[in-house]
Amino acid sequence: MKVAVMLGIGRMGFEERPIPEVKPNEVLVKLKYVGVCGSDIHYYETGRIGNYIVQPPFMLGHESGGIVVKLGQNVKHLKVGDKVALEPGKTCGHCHFCREGKYNLCSDVVFFATPPVDGVFAEYVAHEADLCFKLPENVDTLEGALIEPLAVGFHAANQGEAHVGQTAVIFGAGCIGLVSLMALKAEGVNTVYVVDIMEKRLEKALEVGATAVINSNMVNPVEEINKLTAGEGVNLVIETAGMEITTRQAIDVARKGSNIVLVGYSKSGEMTLPISLAIDKELTFKSVFRYRHIYPMAIEAVASGKIDLRSIVTNIFDFDDIQNAMDMSVSDKSNIVKSVIKI
Amino acid sequence: MKVAVMLGIGRMGFEERPIPEVKPNEVLVKLKYVGVCGSDIHYYETGRIGNYIVQPPFMLGHESGGIVVKLGQNVKHLKVGDKVALEPGKTCGHCHFCREGKYNLCSDVVFFATPPVDGVFAEYVAHEADLCFKLPENVDTLEGALIEPLAVGFHAANQGEAHVGQTAVIFGAGCIGLVSLMALKAEGVNTVYVVDIMEKRLEKALEVGATAVINSNMVNPVEEINKLTAGEGVNLVIETAGMEITTRQAIDVARKGSNIVLVGYSKSGEMTLPISLAIDKELTFKSVFRYRHIYPMAIEAVASGKIDLRSIVTNIFDFDDIQNAMDMSVSDKSNIVKSVIKI
Amino acid sequence: MKVAVMLGIGRMGFEERPIPEVKPNEVLVKLKYVGVCGSDIHYYETGRIGNYIVQPPFMLGHESGGIVVKLGQNVKHLKVGDKVALEPGKTCGHCHFCREGKYNLCSDVVFFATPPVDGVFAEYVAHEADLCFKLPENVDTLEGALIEPLAVGFHAANQGEAHVGQTAVIFGAGCIGLVSLMALKAEGVNTVYVVDIMEKRLEKALEVGATAVINSNMVNPVEEINKLTAGEGVNLVIETAGMEITTRQAIDVARKGSNIVLVGYSKSGEMTLPISLAIDKELTFKSVFRYRHIYPMAIEAVASGKIDLRSIVTNIFDFDDIQNAMDMSVSDKSNIVKSVIKI
Amino acid sequence: MKVAVMLGIGRMGFEERPIPEVKPNEVLVKLKYVGVCGSDIHYYETGRIGNYIVQPPFMLGHESGGIVVKLGQNVKHLKVGDKVALEPGKTCGHCHFCREGKYNLCSDVVFFATPPVDGVFAEYVAHEADLCFKLPENVDTLEGALIEPLAVGFHAANQGEAHVGQTAVIFGAGCIGLVSLMALKAEGVNTVYVVDIMEKRLEKALEVGATAVINSNMVNPVEEINKLTAGEGVNLVIETAGMEITTRQAIDVARKGSNIVLVGYSKSGEMTLPISLAIDKELTFKSVFRYRHIYPMAIEAVASGKIDLRSIVTNIFDFDDIQNAMDMSVSDKSNIVKSVIKI
Repeated sequence: MKVAVMLGIGRMGFEERPIPEVKPNEVLVKLKYVGVCGSDIHYYETGRIGNYIVQPPFMLGHESGGIVVKLGQNVKHLKVGDKVALEPGKTCGHCHFCREGKYNLCSDVVFFATPPVDGVFAEYVAHEADLCFKLPENVDTLEGALIEPLAVGFHAANQGEAHVGQTAVIFGAGCIGLVSLMALKAEGVNTVYVVDIMEKRLEKALEVGATAVINSNMVNPVEEINKLTAGEGVNLVIETAGMEITTRQAIDVARKGSNIVLVGYSKSGEMTLPISLAIDKELTFKSVFRYRHIYPMAIEAVASGKIDLRSIVTNIFDFDDIQNAMDMSVSDKSNIVKSVIKI
Repeated sequence: MKVAVMLGIGRMGFEERPIPEVKPNEVLVKLKYVGVCGSDIHYYETGRIGNYIVQPPFMLGHESGGIVVKLGQNVKHLKVGDKVALEPGKTCGHCHFCREGKYNLCSDVVFFATPPVDGVFAEYVAHEADLCFKLPENVDTLEGALIEPLAVGFHAANQGEAHVGQTAVIFGAGCIGLVSLMALKAEGVNTVYVVDIMEKRLEKALEVGATAVINSNMVNPVEEINKLTAGEGVNLVIETAGMEITTRQAIDVARKGSNIVLVGYSKSGEMTLPISLAIDKELTFKSVFRYRHIYPMAIEAVASGKIDLRSIVTNIFDFDDIQNAMDMSVSDKSNIVKSVIKI
Repeated sequence: MKVAVMLGIGRMGFEERPIPEVKPNEVLVKLKYVGVCGSDIHYYETGRIGNYIVQPPFMLGHESGGIVVKLGQNVKHLKVGDKVALEPGKTCGHCHFCREGKYNLCSDVVFFATPPVDGVFAEYVAHEADLCFKLPENVDTLEGALIEPLAVGFHAANQGEAHVGQTAVIFGAGCIGLVSLMALKAEGVNTVYVVDIMEKRLEKALEVGATAVINSNMVNPVEEINKLTAGEGVNLVIETAGMEITTRQAIDVARKGSNIVLVGYSKSGEMTLPISLAIDKELTFKSVFRYRHIYPMAIEAVASGKIDLRSIVTNIFDFDDIQNAMDMSVSDKSNIVKSVIKI
Repeated sequence: MKVAVMLGIGRMGFEERPIPEVKPNEVLVKLKYVGVCGSDIHYYETGRIGNYIVQPPFMLGHESGGIVVKLGQNVKHLKVGDKVALEPGKTCGHCHFCREGKYNLCSDVVFFATPPVDGVFAEYVAHEADLCFKLPENVDTLEGALIEPLAVGFHAANQGEAHVGQTAVIFGAGCIGLVSLMALKAEGVNTVYVVDIMEKRLEKALEVGATAVINSNMVNPVEEINKLTAGEGVNLVIETAGMEITTRQAIDVARKGSNIVLVGYSKSGEMTLPISLAIDKELTFKSVFRYRHIYPMAIEAVASGKIDLRSIVTNIFDFDDIQNAMDMSVSDKSNIVKSVIKI
């Protein structure tokens, strides 16, 4: 089979590899679409994320949808021909995190495209059948690929205890900001303001359902939100921009007793924040590391028509064009919100 | 002012009373619409609910919307001309229930139309300003009156921890069943089956957004739900019919680990239930007594267009026609889902 | 190795069986103590519990502590000679219950002494290493065996959201009532009343830390609890007696808004309850099916000296004397609170 | 009556004032003991906390216990002679924070010793009867005064979701650190490490029940805690020191998925923190602003003997000696953990 590999910083290539064998609890999936995630781009640009260091040739890609073509002998709940979305992390099932249902914190997780574990920019993958979620009739494999980022959005909304009647703000209108917006709307939050500095992204946010958008290059978002909320501020903030300034703004616009959900990583990893103000307001900061048991919920939300996942896709590239896909995703961040590779 | 009073079982009449004085923290509201609740009908038919016994002449009615016509001297957040929905229960604010936010359990509550406290089938009422919730431009006083039953629906949904991705069943498609359906949908539950025995009500349920309806006079609802859920059952049940048989069915169709919300009162107050089966499934039974801090959320859900409260109203009666309104609500339960009095 | 088997209703015997092989993720445990649970006695008396039917020869026993004598090749966290408590249920790790942390509801669980799965009245057992919890220095294997019922007590306390400042009542002072009492006290509930009809058990309850005990053969427990709580009732009820009458009393003594935890199974499986009263009080009924991720917490509570598990043991029998142990447990319920078999 | 007033920075004095009148819902309390809180000392040293600025003469003191000497006409639940602990904040009871049970966030709160509201360094105070909590026989008015800081400790423990089986660390062994320790122990947390730089305070912490103490002037607390927890870190951190360095250490020692409770205010109000690390661990930061509905629980914990509040008191001063009490509390922080004024 053909697989795309990262050969070095800024360099993609192709290799032939054998189609993987299917273990008893696995299925073989013919991949149809694989999304390009911010982390893929980060590895591509810098060769590492924290202590995870790429050793080329390395396969990127972990947002994937495809079709089951072969079943392991123990697999009951899927059949050949099923469309599936692949949850990319295989966890141990036995540690206390797994046993308590917080399997996203399992230390022994094997996660696509996290060095040294290869990703799925490939024609086939053999994957744990229980992590392959069947897509209903009206959800296609492109949407299936995008269930992965949507799961992050739902986990953010859940961590923030989103509910009907809240007024929310999302900082950052990149892919994760947009899927968070989708999740908030699906969970019944009607009023969601979105803050970014790129007009293209803010337009997308409006298209996806933002109540209003704020370009913080043009206006002070704290003042603007105070105006919009009659000085009351908001009940819920989701921070996806990973900037100190937006996190400070998050604390400023949060109403007393509310939740701020930290999703975005900052460049340096550090932020200087007005912690005493946060204590005065008795704020809660939740954070988001991937997601847990979200796939069925996310697929259902898409199937029901509540969420139009296609609307976040700005670019679809052919598999052969993957070098270009990666390069443009790096160079044209203001226009590309979400790229997907068609395998 | 003119007020309608219950003169005895099955007998309504009118009286003239002075327009009430407004205390410093109150507003005077000119009532526009008052809904007829199941409890009003029950008092009208039998003269009592449990230990609450009607001493005629007694004013019924507690679901009300109107317009502020006079402000108490301390009132800041309302002005004359504001449309408002009236939360009918004034609580002490000091007992441990109030202090912990469970004010619906306050023993010193003064609640409209709960003997000996008069209701609001009247032209005016003076009411605590903090319990008069301003309606936005696009919500009218008829909808305002219906915020009260909708609050019960939202409280039921909240008690059941409704969320995206669940499959739910509601037993009973009377007013409370329908507002529970509206609340579930608003909170993101897409798949909601509704069970009743009256076709008219089931039609309403479909109109309001039920995924499918089941007439348990025609089919066995347990078998039907098992079919619809591929044998898995549902994650959430809201029981509004107040019947032993439906509560037993609730336990039968509930998936392991799920919540059953008990809302409906049974005639005798007693039910024989398969408790061991409930333990085997580790079910939770929550119950609903009125609601707490729901009005702002419910108004917002209506204002946002998520909920069309008018759709549950089957009959609007003039104030002068109140005897007829009460009589028909008693006699024609299969056709009248919700009556409202236009004052 | 020698194993005890149930040969028929009321008949125990012994067999020789090969010492089991150890799989890579398992350890071989030399059993030291195995408790006699109510379910063991029930199988012994009647041959079945619900749809679980004993096919003799069948091994009972699922409350066990022992010493690791052999390690599977993948086992890292244990070593030969470690004292361990054995959690008796092996779950699939992949279903949605397992993934959400509610593994006690896993449909594919393999649980000791639940037909057709054999129990551990035996000299050795090979068991999943992750379900063998190492006991610290100051906890012995007798206490290790009793971690199993204690886990039920903690799960009941957790389901009831036990916390400092509550006043609680436990109905039933058998083994599960007593371990629930221990768990409540460990979680900071100081005031716990215990109701039973057997004096011996009530004495045990006092010994274990009950604030006061009530013999409901002598006094009306509802009146008594009202007296003790100045008419306020209690915040938390744990029902372990499995009787309709005690469950009705639970509803009577529960304060508005409080939790009742249903643990005990009734003979018929059915109960007639005042559900309308429960709704008026907005009570919550939680239920308990086994437990989940409790062993480490329970072991820690014993190791810290908070809980003296030995105090519930009334009888220790030799392995050879198991027929007698079973028979006495059946016939002398008023004197035997907890029997343990010394292997 | 005699009252002590702050005349300026570092200057106390006395005045004669009329004994206050008692309103219908109030009681007159003869004060017996009033604690000296960190905030009192801060006002005394600097004249302000944030935007709260002292206008002399100003009465400090908000931790108080006393005896009821007169009842307002509506007061039912207290009688003359009752010992009481006074919750110092009177809230509006009507705003959405009050209605939702988060009354500590009420914007209209009137709180003792928060400018311009006078405190209770005085012989008498008239106070809302519902905020005067009756002390049982075995709790005296000195302990009653200290219920106030203990309530902060319990709120911190509750915010952190403290429970049996956790391993916790408290940074800072001042008064709030110690009451947090007491609250954790009362809620069933057995293993609590305490970090400070003053030996005297660490000795107190050991006396109060710390499992081990760490002087971070002598050893690196992160390394030490890693050693003590076999590299696993802790499940719960309570940060009362208000230092950037301790908050960073809190993030370092917290296990994945755990809660950090922020209680201490830093000098500058700002901290630079490794937020990306916190996201990687999916930590939650809760914060603590005063407390809500804790007094009954805290009094019960003291009455039960679980908590010995006297053990945190290092100094008792006569009322006439208040200048000295304030001066020593400022100058001798390493020896004075808690001062109390005997009125």
